[in-house]
Amino acid sequence: VGDPPFGRVGIVGLGLIGGSIALGIRRAWPAAVVIGVDQAAVVDVARDRGVITERGETLSDLRDVDLMILATPVPEIAQLLRRAADEKVRTLVTDVGSTKRRIMAAAKHGAITFVGGHPIAGSARGGLDHARPDLFEGHPWLLVPGDAAEPVVGRLERLVRGLGAIPRRTDAETHDRVMAYVSHLPQLLSSALMTAAGAAIGEPGLALSGRGFADMTRLASSPAEIWRGILATNTDYIAEAVGALIAALPSTTQELADNTRVEDVFRHANEWFATMDHSKTTGGR
Amino acid sequence: VGDPPFGRVGIVGLGLIGGSIALGIRRAWPAAVVIGVDQAAVVDVARDRGVITERGETLSDLRDVDLMILATPVPEIAQLLRRAADEKVRTLVTDVGSTKRRIMAAAKHGAITFVGGHPIAGSARGGLDHARPDLFEGHPWLLVPGDAAEPVVGRLERLVRGLGAIPRRTDAETHDRVMAYVSHLPQLLSSALMTAAGAAIGEPGLALSGRGFADMTRLASSPAEIWRGILATNTDYIAEAVGALIAALPSTTQELADNTRVEDVFRHANEWFATMDHSKTTGGR
Repeated sequence: VGDPPFGRVGIVGLGLIGGSIALGIRRAWPAAVVIGVDQAAVVDVARDRGVITERGETLSDLRDVDLMILATPVPEIAQLLRRAADEKVRTLVTDVGSTKRRIMAAAKHGAITFVGGHPIAGSARGGLDHARPDLFEGHPWLLVPGDAAEPVVGRLERLVRGLGAIPRRTDAETHDRVMAYVSHLPQLLSSALMTAAGAAIGEPGLALSGRGFADMTRLASSPAEIWRGILATNTDYIAEAVGALIAALPSTTQELADNTRVEDVFRHANEWFATMDHSKTTGGR
Repeated sequence: VGDPPFGRVGIVGLGLIGGSIALGIRRAWPAAVVIGVDQAAVVDVARDRGVITERGETLSDLRDVDLMILATPVPEIAQLLRRAADEKVRTLVTDVGSTKRRIMAAAKHGAITFVGGHPIAGSARGGLDHARPDLFEGHPWLLVPGDAAEPVVGRLERLVRGLGAIPRRTDAETHDRVMAYVSHLPQLLSSALMTAAGAAIGEPGLALSGRGFADMTRLASSPAEIWRGILATNTDYIAEAVGALIAALPSTTQELADNTRVEDVFRHANEWFATMDHSKTTGGR
């Protein structure tokens, strides 16, 4: 993979994503220094297991890094950017947040040198315990350059490729609108389906479900804590996506009995399904 | 497994389900005679491969069987029941249709000795080519006794157990309402999500989706032909289920920004998710 694009990297938040980034960097560039910041107990575990090379306690411990990666939930990323602005941080900063408009605005307001990031990867189980160096392999990693200079973005792309991911540049608006449809709406649908079905038919009814229902409700185990900030920072596009879903859904007895209406939705679904590459849809979120 | 509950079985429709029933019977009771009825080309293949032991062309070729299994799509099952009534069929008849009220009514109208059936199993790919003797193993197989006598239902339960499935008795109303929530609504949601997302963000957007979206749109490859009859015979309960889903779904920007509203749906979803057994959710439909 060549020389490390960043010799000293600071990571704030050592959960599934932050921990996996640390492991991936250490695998790709064994000489790189990786400083982790999180709760003391988490940082200790990460240091003991060799996930990171140095422990940090606060942002000020990351003063001399070449890259600062904010790998916390979305609301904390915005807070961290404000704090970085207050402390006049000069280092290049990136993040892994699931929405980008609010975060790009916070970085711009604080005059931080910032490139937004979003690795499209995840796992059913979060936390440092499930971090792995190959989490991002083969998955897109979206980068939102904003006002950052070309060489800076190119360096980040090298880092992303070193983790096995496929960097793709986009803008915050496009990012947030696309994610409303492929991530946020699916999450809400899964939770709402589980809730509506459970309330209506209870455990005896749920016991008669098969694989289709299991697929459709797998995301229903997602915790509200992580999603609160995602939903709150993308309400307009999610509302648009929910509206589009409801419009596409045959819902009345009249619509359900209308062959043309039902066949249209199946035909369009079949057509869009066929355009997708179904060979690499494991491991991502 | 003991003596075969039925020495001579006729199966109409040698697709994934009918073919798998034939294979399962032959595996459990090698001496059983299994007569298959379908298009000539399909029956020839099934006979050549040993899926069935005898070929049939019409219902009249099944005059001397002990059990007739209707394994066609729902609308054809109702038609076959009418024809069986016209031909004064005396044999015990069962089916594998995904809705039960319309079919139970058709059997009663024709004074057929009938027990409704619905194996909760399936596969992403249909047709005889994907039939396998273990398709039903570990999955519920719903039986709707209707007016059938106890010994008849008990015999069918022996057959179902011989195929590795778990027989469960229910009534047509309960069956159709539960299936609206765990099967028909999930199918419609998957197709509508694929359609809405494809139309809104196109192929470039879909290329940025991950595993969650793949899970939620796996059913979107289902063909309209099979689902037309299912939806048309369960419109009232499906409309109820779609309404419950829409009510559970935070949809406006106000609702999406309301922490209590969002957390309620996640919390309820988490709770219902936790009540389910997630160890055996592969292979079913």
